[in-house]
Amino acid sequence: MPWMMTMMSTTFILMLTSKQETIVLGLDPGLADTGFAFLSKNNQVLTLLECGSIKTAKNLKLAERLLSLESAIKKLLVKHPVDLVSIEKLYFARNVTTGIDVAQARGVAMLTLAKEKKQILEFTPLQVKQTLTGSGAAQKRQVGLMVKTILKLKEVPKPDDAADAAALAICGAWFNQKLSLAQ
Amino acid sequence: MPWMMTMMSTTFILMLTSKQETIVLGLDPGLADTGFAFLSKNNQVLTLLECGSIKTAKNLKLAERLLSLESAIKKLLVKHPVDLVSIEKLYFARNVTTGIDVAQARGVAMLTLAKEKKQILEFTPLQVKQTLTGSGAAQKRQVGLMVKTILKLKEVPKPDDAADAAALAICGAWFNQKLSLAQ
Repeated sequence: MPWMMTMMSTTFILMLTSKQETIVLGLDPGLADTGFAFLSKNNQVLTLLECGSIKTAKNLKLAERLLSLESAIKKLLVKHPVDLVSIEKLYFARNVTTGIDVAQARGVAMLTLAKEKKQILEFTPLQVKQTLTGSGAAQKRQVGLMVKTILKLKEVPKPDDAADAAALAICGAWFNQKLSLAQ
Repeated sequence: MPWMMTMMSTTFILMLTSKQETIVLGLDPGLADTGFAFLSKNNQVLTLLECGSIKTAKNLKLAERLLSLESAIKKLLVKHPVDLVSIEKLYFARNVTTGIDVAQARGVAMLTLAKEKKQILEFTPLQVKQTLTGSGAAQKRQVGLMVKTILKLKEVPKPDDAADAAALAICGAWFNQKLSLAQ
């Protein structure tokens, strides 16, 4: 059966050319708090390596806060050899002033990732909700519970930014797998 | 007359400690176009050294555009030994999508300036209009004509972003002088 041979050889090539483990970083940028989550994807298993929130001091000037954010992202990228980054896409800011700060921080994050030549995927909050729960109307709590279930955690990651970043990382890992299989 | 002695010695100290020439950079950040203008301030005389617009290609990805913006700002800072930067302050974005892009570019500009340890002043478009024309309701054309007059130019600088940046630089130079005299 020639088609079976083809399938087998394709699988063999995929095994040879694809790295066993992929490290995905989920990033939810903000000026005061930037959520981050590093996942390892080994075969179909996702494991949370580290998550948390980068905070910048409110008493510092904007330029100093951006410097401190850049420095923290760089340190994390040294710690984890990231293959793929999944970052929140800004599509609308209800609070324009906060939105400006988030966007300035996001610009710095994107620049830092670009310098490290990381592959970047972008997802809107709606896409994240739909991917994890099947519904764009899902509450933050439901998304958090799905993160906990998928990553086999005892608790939903804290703070909220870290949980959001973990949800982004899961989206990135799943979407990247689809891309790989389609190639 | 002891007060005259004090005045004279203060003037002498100011002459000794203050550099003759100050270079001011006006920066009007954007993702597609970032206006810039370098002014020299020598005593009370402002001279335009260079102005223009940094453009990033629309067909590039956001991260690549931000890298290209950072690189262009760095090159300009090498060319002109800037003492002070005057940058547009974002306070409201009528077009939210454009506003997000402007803010991401502005974040990158602020980071780049902070790395070079430049002193930064921020002015809203309203403050720029009021400072140059005396009216916050002034049209762009009126601001441009004031730029032309103050800098003794034959024409209003082109493109618009460069003229806006020159207006910002004038504000920075004047405001900085007030600060120096008050010290």
